[in-house]
Amino acid sequence: MNTQSLRISIKALIPALALSLATPAMAQFAKPEDAVKYRQSALTLMGAHMGRLAAVVKGEVPYNKEDVVRNAAIISTLSSMPWQAFPAGTESGKTPGKNDALPVIWTENAKFKSAADKMQAAVAELNTAAQSGNPENLKKALGATSQTCKACHDDFRKK
Amino acid sequence: MNTQSLRISIKALIPALALSLATPAMAQFAKPEDAVKYRQSALTLMGAHMGRLAAVVKGEVPYNKEDVVRNAAIISTLSSMPWQAFPAGTESGKTPGKNDALPVIWTENAKFKSAADKMQAAVAELNTAAQSGNPENLKKALGATSQTCKACHDDFRKK
Repeated sequence: MNTQSLRISIKALIPALALSLATPAMAQFAKPEDAVKYRQSALTLMGAHMGRLAAVVKGEVPYNKEDVVRNAAIISTLSSMPWQAFPAGTESGKTPGKNDALPVIWTENAKFKSAADKMQAAVAELNTAAQSGNPENLKKALGATSQTCKACHDDFRKK
Repeated sequence: MNTQSLRISIKALIPALALSLATPAMAQFAKPEDAVKYRQSALTLMGAHMGRLAAVVKGEVPYNKEDVVRNAAIISTLSSMPWQAFPAGTESGKTPGKNDALPVIWTENAKFKSAADKMQAAVAELNTAAQSGNPENLKKALGATSQTCKACHDDFRKK
């Protein structure tokens, strides 16, 4: 393949590439409120399972490695899910029902993405800690993960 | 260990066992409405990801094995989650907000559990089909899974 034909091939790909980058956010939701419900569901479940690990760390529930590993794995699966569900036009006040997403999510989107990335990195560490079977590791990693949740809520969620 | 000491050990375990069977349902939720929100969140996300696979099967979205496997894996994780979140006293009308759970879930609980088990078995097949990379397998397994969703909704969810 010469340079000319390579250039043409790449050019031909651009619309498809642009489409594939554009579709994940919105095409998966029929209505804006579906995206809101989706992300709220994922974050609700994450919160519930973070709470279960917190109960272990606080000593309210006995430490059981299998349960800890299962909760961390669920959090891990969920942690990648909410971010695709913030298409433009789904901020607080733009959809019916409860919606606490501040407009700054879209006006400072790079900052929002960075906060989401930090959470996912912390969740990966949480998984490692859960699998280690060491309650002290769990405590540290859960604290670090909670901080990333809080940081994002402080900046991007309605008080 | 002789029979006598084995009998004592088992007896000593009964309260702990009874507790561990009793706690999963309610202790994990501070309020009945938290359980409702939890199960609705899990089922909402399952529905969304079933919808993504349906779009592939219908040809609305091009078949991509990696995406199909990821969606099936998410469904698999979610499929085990709602069932712990049906503690007694959380039927429709007993909690604030939307709640479509019919009382028959508790009055015919064995039937409900069997329906939940059928769904989870179908989801296991769906995962296998996704990993096979064969769109025809996906279509069949998705159809079978959808049937288990519908069967449960028909019997246990408010119309």
